[in-house]
Amino acid sequence: MQILVVLPVTELQKKQLENAAPGAAFLYRSPKDATAEEISQSRIIVGNVPADRIRASENLLLMQLNSAGTDAYIRPGVLHPSTKLANATGAYSKAVAEHLFAMGIALQKNLPLYRDMQQQHVWGDAGRVTSMADATVLVVGMGDIGTNFARLCKGVGAKTIGVRRRYADPVEGVDEVHLTEDLDALLPRADVIASFLPGTGATKGIFSRERFALMKPSAIFLNGGRGNAVDQDALADALQNGRLFAAGLDVTDPEPLPADHIFWTLPNLFLTPHISGGFHLPETLDRIVAIAARNIMHVVNGEPIENEVDFETGYRK
Amino acid sequence: MQILVVLPVTELQKKQLENAAPGAAFLYRSPKDATAEEISQSRIIVGNVPADRIRASENLLLMQLNSAGTDAYIRPGVLHPSTKLANATGAYSKAVAEHLFAMGIALQKNLPLYRDMQQQHVWGDAGRVTSMADATVLVVGMGDIGTNFARLCKGVGAKTIGVRRRYADPVEGVDEVHLTEDLDALLPRADVIASFLPGTGATKGIFSRERFALMKPSAIFLNGGRGNAVDQDALADALQNGRLFAAGLDVTDPEPLPADHIFWTLPNLFLTPHISGGFHLPETLDRIVAIAARNIMHVVNGEPIENEVDFETGYRK
Repeated sequence: MQILVVLPVTELQKKQLENAAPGAAFLYRSPKDATAEEISQSRIIVGNVPADRIRASENLLLMQLNSAGTDAYIRPGVLHPSTKLANATGAYSKAVAEHLFAMGIALQKNLPLYRDMQQQHVWGDAGRVTSMADATVLVVGMGDIGTNFARLCKGVGAKTIGVRRRYADPVEGVDEVHLTEDLDALLPRADVIASFLPGTGATKGIFSRERFALMKPSAIFLNGGRGNAVDQDALADALQNGRLFAAGLDVTDPEPLPADHIFWTLPNLFLTPHISGGFHLPETLDRIVAIAARNIMHVVNGEPIENEVDFETGYRK
Repeated sequence: MQILVVLPVTELQKKQLENAAPGAAFLYRSPKDATAEEISQSRIIVGNVPADRIRASENLLLMQLNSAGTDAYIRPGVLHPSTKLANATGAYSKAVAEHLFAMGIALQKNLPLYRDMQQQHVWGDAGRVTSMADATVLVVGMGDIGTNFARLCKGVGAKTIGVRRRYADPVEGVDEVHLTEDLDALLPRADVIASFLPGTGATKGIFSRERFALMKPSAIFLNGGRGNAVDQDALADALQNGRLFAAGLDVTDPEPLPADHIFWTLPNLFLTPHISGGFHLPETLDRIVAIAARNIMHVVNGEPIENEVDFETGYRK
């Protein structure tokens, strides 16, 4: 059995993967260097090889993504219906939640504006600030990342409200949990709105012009999910017209953002280039390898895998 | 009895002060507009009038500062020995602690570098990040601000160590408390070092070249106290030579920082222009007015005041 791994794994992490399938032939490549033949002959692939090179081979038992997002892999024709798809939900939750939390707090304290002043050697004053301790934080998308984000905010005193697709059950460390259908009623209450929605048909454009109009003019909007959840023209208008205090985005649509896009230039928009996840926090890769090793073992043993993705919704089943 | 107030108080805040001394004549001025005569004829001054215009009048019963720092007012010849001096310790603790916490988290996530990239329209990658949840945070100066800062860090998972001048008693929300004499042994353990030391003779230059050399090369240094606690040349050298990961400063020596100072230009130094306190967080002025009103009442009633400053140390007695 051939297993293709396209992650920048350490020797220790290789051992961890190989121990999960004794006797299997492990190939280590970069995502770009893996050949079409290597891809088509592998029974298991660990890591995001380009989706357009997988070609729905029946040979593939498990496609283990290193991403939480699954959009490119659930499209018809990418994977054979018999292939199991698993994502790395959970691996990124710490890194992404912390990054968006840092962006939100930085915007409350006008830190991007002070960095701009520093570049100009200006000892100036950017005015009023707000406090996470006084904020009501609305988290849209209460998966691992959103839940972690809410807990960070609560850890420094915020009131936290979560919005989920289904099951508005209580979540530890989150003050209120509601369903997506209540979103419009919740937006006017929030000082910080943070989206961690994946890119699915149901989430596209959910942050519409009408919804930005429901937010407080003093609110901060954060996006750590997918860029296409946002009507970007509406967001730019709201930021320029004082109908929204600030926004922090780690994701845009498209990515990379074109160099002439207005988002680069809005002083009250803080943009980071989809780096909140990745392997920037070393712990993230450890977590991905752990998920992959367990799933390799599950496939070898004919057991159900973890983090299995539903092709219909793009979410974990 | 004439009471001079040089704070930007609201009508409600005026009422609060005036209720503390019925019958007194309240003058409201800006610090710049208060005349020498108005200053010399006041029995109580609320707010930081320029120290060089007070001239040690015996007439002055109480000088109620709106700052936590007292340096300019404890110098010989500024206040008469019979004048009581009170600072606004406590009023700024939330604002300053949150600002420095935001700077620290922003530096852990390379946010200043991403803001620089945004200015250049660059979709880039600033590399590895660290996490407050994995950090050991050393807080030097455990007054209200330092204690608040430590609790914010602990709220998102950090291990916190506090250093005090005296009484290394346990502090709620702080994992370990040590005395200043242990500083050199503690510096090598810290991932984040935050100074909230006031400007006194004893704290000048305490962050010396030797002490920066004791810090981890991966450490982040923060200063929310006074700029002269730091050997600024040594800090610049450490940042340029990779012996310190990053620094976040809200205070410098002198202030404003001269436009040609190297601090403006170091990419891994994040500078804000002593704005963490001030009245940027509206709650701060509320707190100052509350302290002032209580102290006016104490003076009127001949009672001991709160937040009284010791002229020898510059600290609250």
